[in-house]
Amino acid sequence: MDYYSKQISRLIQELGALPGIGAKTAQRLAFHILNMPAEQVQALSAAMVEAKQNVRYCKECYTLTDEELCPICKDHHRNHKMIMVVEGTRDLAAYEKTGKYEGVYHVLHGAIAPMLGIGPNDIKLKELMQRLAKDVDEVIIATNSSLEGETTAMYISKLIKPTGIKVTRIASGVPVGGDLEYIDEVTLLRALEGRTEL
Amino acid sequence: MDYYSKQISRLIQELGALPGIGAKTAQRLAFHILNMPAEQVQALSAAMVEAKQNVRYCKECYTLTDEELCPICKDHHRNHKMIMVVEGTRDLAAYEKTGKYEGVYHVLHGAIAPMLGIGPNDIKLKELMQRLAKDVDEVIIATNSSLEGETTAMYISKLIKPTGIKVTRIASGVPVGGDLEYIDEVTLLRALEGRTEL
Repeated sequence: MDYYSKQISRLIQELGALPGIGAKTAQRLAFHILNMPAEQVQALSAAMVEAKQNVRYCKECYTLTDEELCPICKDHHRNHKMIMVVEGTRDLAAYEKTGKYEGVYHVLHGAIAPMLGIGPNDIKLKELMQRLAKDVDEVIIATNSSLEGETTAMYISKLIKPTGIKVTRIASGVPVGGDLEYIDEVTLLRALEGRTEL
Repeated sequence: MDYYSKQISRLIQELGALPGIGAKTAQRLAFHILNMPAEQVQALSAAMVEAKQNVRYCKECYTLTDEELCPICKDHHRNHKMIMVVEGTRDLAAYEKTGKYEGVYHVLHGAIAPMLGIGPNDIKLKELMQRLAKDVDEVIIATNSSLEGETTAMYISKLIKPTGIKVTRIASGVPVGGDLEYIDEVTLLRALEGRTEL
């Protein structure tokens, strides 16, 4: 990239290191940033550095937050006896967008994946078990419907069952609006097994 | 985005304001940044702010650079008597990637677009005319093949012709590897008009 001066090349390179940002997009973003008002560049840059400095795990549910307790764990209107276990903070956000879930969460930050060397001790599982010492009615396992997600769900349910706490798994089946002909066989079989009476 | 804490929401919002970065991508990038080592976040952030602070126009060709003269204008091996006129710095980069162009450039930073209220005085055209006072053999107009690019090319050629300097326009036609059946009629007609003897 000799045709760009040093600082422009460096900016393109730094942006290009972000996931899903290819060489062309990095160039486009770099020139956009160079054309932005200086205060806006400052704001973007500060947002990154400050978030990185201050963001930590919520001491209750382990989601990422900038305070000791996340907004959900702090909320007294939520049902703290119902815990939904998710793999990541974005999965939590996905359920929050539905606006219908009244309980709290537990973020594992990963899933058990023996092939990748990720075991039960590499995710926030011990921390989940500690939370169950308090008064909990139900643990809803909402890990992904992938091999790792299912393995993790299985593992957690075996761990919790002896405590007598109710453990459930979110349903797996045909997505709403999904066209049967385009859906894979495994999903179709799951949908059949999970059929409910009308 | 109440389900994310304030600083995370702010980071997602700042990233989402960049062109081509939608809500989902902004979220993905934000969490990636939060997981990056602190030094790397610092480097990305500094690259933005520093580039914004130091990048200015090359005093010769008006491309973006962090020094008085860009690397191309500083290069004595280039032919400074041949000037390629482009709309933006990225167009310059596109031609540099071919590695075959030996001349220098002039970056207009836009094109004449009467519909958008952009006239000849809103682009670096006066600056181009000033450069022609020096010893110049040829001006190659490489504005885009769009309505605005063609208008600008026409305008510039009329302005330069009286000076006696040779003015050329890059060829317009079927892209290499292009399948005729998928190419629009205007391009096909251009390719026909611009045919050369074999």
